[in-house]
Amino acid sequence: MDNGKLSRIIEAMKAEDMYQMIITDPVSIFYLTNAWILPGERMLALYINVDGETELFVNKLFPQSKDLGVHITYFDDIEDGVEIMSRVVAKDKVIGIDKTWPARFLLRLQELGAGSKFVNGSLIVDKVRQIKDEKEIELMRISSRINDEVMAELVQWANKGLTEKELNAKCREIYKAHGCEGVSFDPITAYAAGAADPHHVTDDSVGKRGDCVLLDIGGFKDNYASDMTRTFFLGEVSDKAREVYEIVKEAERRGIEAAKPGNRMMDVDLACRNYIEEMGYGEYFTHRTGHSCGLEDHEWGDVSSVNEAIIQVGQCFSVEPGIYLPDEGIGVRIEDLVIITEDGCEVLNSYPKDLTVLPFED
Amino acid sequence: MDNGKLSRIIEAMKAEDMYQMIITDPVSIFYLTNAWILPGERMLALYINVDGETELFVNKLFPQSKDLGVHITYFDDIEDGVEIMSRVVAKDKVIGIDKTWPARFLLRLQELGAGSKFVNGSLIVDKVRQIKDEKEIELMRISSRINDEVMAELVQWANKGLTEKELNAKCREIYKAHGCEGVSFDPITAYAAGAADPHHVTDDSVGKRGDCVLLDIGGFKDNYASDMTRTFFLGEVSDKAREVYEIVKEAERRGIEAAKPGNRMMDVDLACRNYIEEMGYGEYFTHRTGHSCGLEDHEWGDVSSVNEAIIQVGQCFSVEPGIYLPDEGIGVRIEDLVIITEDGCEVLNSYPKDLTVLPFED
Repeated sequence: MDNGKLSRIIEAMKAEDMYQMIITDPVSIFYLTNAWILPGERMLALYINVDGETELFVNKLFPQSKDLGVHITYFDDIEDGVEIMSRVVAKDKVIGIDKTWPARFLLRLQELGAGSKFVNGSLIVDKVRQIKDEKEIELMRISSRINDEVMAELVQWANKGLTEKELNAKCREIYKAHGCEGVSFDPITAYAAGAADPHHVTDDSVGKRGDCVLLDIGGFKDNYASDMTRTFFLGEVSDKAREVYEIVKEAERRGIEAAKPGNRMMDVDLACRNYIEEMGYGEYFTHRTGHSCGLEDHEWGDVSSVNEAIIQVGQCFSVEPGIYLPDEGIGVRIEDLVIITEDGCEVLNSYPKDLTVLPFED
Repeated sequence: MDNGKLSRIIEAMKAEDMYQMIITDPVSIFYLTNAWILPGERMLALYINVDGETELFVNKLFPQSKDLGVHITYFDDIEDGVEIMSRVVAKDKVIGIDKTWPARFLLRLQELGAGSKFVNGSLIVDKVRQIKDEKEIELMRISSRINDEVMAELVQWANKGLTEKELNAKCREIYKAHGCEGVSFDPITAYAAGAADPHHVTDDSVGKRGDCVLLDIGGFKDNYASDMTRTFFLGEVSDKAREVYEIVKEAERRGIEAAKPGNRMMDVDLACRNYIEEMGYGEYFTHRTGHSCGLEDHEWGDVSSVNEAIIQVGQCFSVEPGIYLPDEGIGVRIEDLVIITEDGCEVLNSYPKDLTVLPFED
């Protein structure tokens, strides 16, 4: 058990008057114990209370060989795991429940009367996970450094006549070759009309001269996610596309500039959004500016125009404005991950952002 | 909405004194509405009560173009979908909840007081889904007929020096080529020691002369799953392996013979298990005999030694005894799907089960 992280969770529980909670998301359990336990449909739960009592409940099918620094109670398929866990729950006190816990477990816990009131406790863990410690920051740096290298390799294939699906498969191969566990989300490897649709599904299109190529990619290295987007052009670039590109690039720069302690999350969004609006493309920037990132590519905490939360040191999130003109087959997005520092932010990606026209043979 | 299926669910709800329920599993919603709605982390819920009132709650991101025969209420990301749904719930009556519904929705519904008591309602739907209607039976037949063809093609590759992973990838290709949506589970394509371990993960092993090759495969065709296992030998077969093979084959025959209305599910298991025990291999048959199958490869209703449920006409399940001798690198399993008929069962697979030694060049 990581005692630093556990203490922060217990402090947050005290602040919310939550005596006890059960954490059931395998990612949050990994966050605290450094053990990946993926129980599928079986129960897995880490009990914590503000007195510092902890206990992990695991099905016997998933024996743990190393010491996780927490007492483990095992149960098997013919035992009632929820009933066994309920014995440690204080029945007369509020209990926090993780947001994804399936109803079959929660209803059983309620039937057993294990807790005086059942509330969604995920936010407590999500808020702690949002602030990365030094070790996590170093892992995020390494993961994004690899992402820069992957982008550099992948772009070599972007002008070679591959279909979007082939480029997607190539991207996955490159992460593997760089020692990543895999991709942190389905890579977006889209040409022209596909790039202009943020909900596009990778298909069998190939790029043509003048097309943009949007590469939104990320991998997992030692459990931490990377996430970066660059947009390139094949053979030539129209004046319109160049204009759009430069606006997105400047919007992203402004977003990064606004990413500092004391500002609100919405200030980052608005720094990008207001500039794009000023330049006349407001209605074509159709999504929020970014999302938190860490053990999962998308973590709690949006960079959106309505998130009033104050930015704190140690947060990691993406800044990724875009402009999408489906009628003209132009879609440009530029994205970096940033870590908030005492006086601003550290940009985790260093792959260049200058407009790049790739050589293209028809 | 399929009124036959809906009526059966309402009858089952009445029998359980459950006035209302919300179905949230996308597979069960497809079962009733013939529409696949995959909302990811967003709420999706079908409300049903015993007065026949129904309403489907769907996020606007998933608009339905065809008429599903049920009124749809749409909501967006800034609305509270659970609160909107709660307006149709009878607050003074019991409400059934689907077993996988995430806690974040259930806790909100409880906070709103929408229901006098919250109970796990999944079993009602699972039991109805267990009994296939004529249309479903025809789809199961078609899916398994394709599975016979896939097995015939795949076995051509089993003696060609492919690794387990390559054979797995080949298997997936063959389903696609046969017009399937994909595999219904990760195919097991295992040689020797891998075949002898029911929890083996496909690796880079290749088959050697005398090895067994275990192929446990299935696909989805028009949404219905197939699932069949055959075990082959490369170049030659040892006396021990031959003995084991013939015992498993006879055990499977006995299991199928016991699969008829009026028998209990456990009778099918015991028909296989008792014979294998009699022949001296009881401790090497380490899993249950089978599972129900339909829109999912594994559905509710096990063929296990403790399931006392009476077998009913229209059920579809697998019969798949096996014997695993890890020390000798021998693993044999034979599996067919059956549909229960008035006087016994129809075996959905026709791929031969006679012991087959594949030609093998060292």
